[in-house]
Amino acid sequence: VKQVILRSHPNGVPRATDFSVVEAAMPSPADGQVLLKTLWLSLDPMIRLSLDENVITGPTKVRIGDVVFGATVSRVEASRHPDFAVGDYVDGRTGWREYAAIDPKAVPLRKVDASVAPLSTAVGALGMPGQTAHACMIGVGRVAAGETVVISAAAGAVGSLAGQIGKILGARVVGIAGNDAKCAALVKLGFDAAVNYKSPDYAEKLKVACPNGVDCYIENVGGTVTEAVLPLFKYRARMPVCGFIAYYGVGREGPGPDKLPGFMRAVMSKGLEIRGFGGTMVAGPAALKDLAEWVKAGKLKVTETIVEGLDAAPAAFAATFADNDHIGKVMVRVAKDA
Amino acid sequence: VKQVILRSHPNGVPRATDFSVVEAAMPSPADGQVLLKTLWLSLDPMIRLSLDENVITGPTKVRIGDVVFGATVSRVEASRHPDFAVGDYVDGRTGWREYAAIDPKAVPLRKVDASVAPLSTAVGALGMPGQTAHACMIGVGRVAAGETVVISAAAGAVGSLAGQIGKILGARVVGIAGNDAKCAALVKLGFDAAVNYKSPDYAEKLKVACPNGVDCYIENVGGTVTEAVLPLFKYRARMPVCGFIAYYGVGREGPGPDKLPGFMRAVMSKGLEIRGFGGTMVAGPAALKDLAEWVKAGKLKVTETIVEGLDAAPAAFAATFADNDHIGKVMVRVAKDA
Repeated sequence: VKQVILRSHPNGVPRATDFSVVEAAMPSPADGQVLLKTLWLSLDPMIRLSLDENVITGPTKVRIGDVVFGATVSRVEASRHPDFAVGDYVDGRTGWREYAAIDPKAVPLRKVDASVAPLSTAVGALGMPGQTAHACMIGVGRVAAGETVVISAAAGAVGSLAGQIGKILGARVVGIAGNDAKCAALVKLGFDAAVNYKSPDYAEKLKVACPNGVDCYIENVGGTVTEAVLPLFKYRARMPVCGFIAYYGVGREGPGPDKLPGFMRAVMSKGLEIRGFGGTMVAGPAALKDLAEWVKAGKLKVTETIVEGLDAAPAAFAATFADNDHIGKVMVRVAKDA
Repeated sequence: VKQVILRSHPNGVPRATDFSVVEAAMPSPADGQVLLKTLWLSLDPMIRLSLDENVITGPTKVRIGDVVFGATVSRVEASRHPDFAVGDYVDGRTGWREYAAIDPKAVPLRKVDASVAPLSTAVGALGMPGQTAHACMIGVGRVAAGETVVISAAAGAVGSLAGQIGKILGARVVGIAGNDAKCAALVKLGFDAAVNYKSPDYAEKLKVACPNGVDCYIENVGGTVTEAVLPLFKYRARMPVCGFIAYYGVGREGPGPDKLPGFMRAVMSKGLEIRGFGGTMVAGPAALKDLAEWVKAGKLKVTETIVEGLDAAPAAFAATFADNDHIGKVMVRVAKDA
């Protein structure tokens, strides 16, 4: 059976050649373990944080030769654990592999109800990205009807959901993405406007898209994308921080100049509220209930970019850090559910 | 009568020679104006922000030849305004001068009750610095008994009050200051510990002073002072931003490396809450009531560094940006109240 291991720690942006797809023996569950067949693998940008030689913050460190860290949806093929039965669907961080023998005490598993929504949504709209989007817009961002919310990495898993939640809340929603095709897709998804941060007049276009200023900015990126938002902030604007993809692989210090003085100036002069999301801060069951209802009612469209087979995972993951045509959650269909 | 004008825009740290003390004619109040005799002038570090050639954020720009911006306590000497009578005390941003003719519509004036506390506290413990300290610790910082709060520029006007409020709230209070004499003064004022950020093992000493980590950090400084706090933050810690003296005169960008990536990493991985203070965010009358009661009860000691006469203002202001022995609010006694 196949699994993907780390071949080299990425130097800056990850490349497909930092990974190897290798054959391993079919695992056999010990007492207290379950044997899982991976159906879906989620390619979250956050995985990048675990691949550094010296992991600073983020999920568990992946060493050379280790199976790569990642969230999956799996089916139980064999169980030596009383809480799980053959045929159950579960999600958990079981890694980039076709089969895994997992002790749920070491790697928490959550049962997934396949009747609610497509299985892949367990690591998307009805999983961590959905909860993150919900927290950004509601718990932390406190977005109100009539406000303007700007979302970076808006075509991503969190961003595409956050924008739709913004529309449900009655806000003006402006997305930022990396090419015109993504911007068009966002408008189709209901965003009021979308701006390509690679266009030469990006800052000016963003300003035009936010004629009343910015009440809330969902931070997924950092760097120059965020710099253009700072002058548009209204007093007491909020900035939930879900990610900072521009700095993944940068460590604690980037090349100069130092941008922290300008950031702190904006924080103080505009009375900004910046809130990060630690592991324990994600919205809970109430948020999942909202999300499930919105998906069922068709108010929240699940957008996914699907690649087929574990072999395709390294290139698809590398592509998430380059110019790409991904819209929504990037998923690997590791196996069909049959 | 004397006034202090700006002679040159400071290049980085302000120097006494950036200012000139000049003679002007005694002003004469027009209809609707009051003639004020300045008793106290407050030397707030924030004034620095108004002195740049290209003011980015902060209070009103001061041009070459303008009277320098600053908060004062004054006595009404003559009044052509129905709300003010000769002998009233007022505070307002009337500038670095012995006498001023002020239109209260242009420069808001607040009456000061001289029976509550010494007049100088109107621009200190019972004015903006007190309200800022109150908001830092209570409204924004939400400091609770048993928590650890770290305060930068702890010997300053806001810091020395914030630390005492922290003790009133039952928190462990750790101050950061720029020399050992200030640290000793802070401990005498009731701080549990104080650390000199110029000592070579500053970061290690700060860690030792915060054995349970940091729940709240009052930001007045920025730069390396703040960098040492980031690894000590507990999950969901708060960081009220009252100032960033290390960046005053720096503009939006400092010399590299770029420290913003490490800051955003801390924000996200620790779920931090960063809140700036815009002009409208300062605590209101309820806070002033708390402060007045604490001062009256002796729970909040008013610490001031007083220099005599307007001639001394330029050097005293420059000294607030250099190594100095200032403790608490730095005040110029422009005239005795007689």
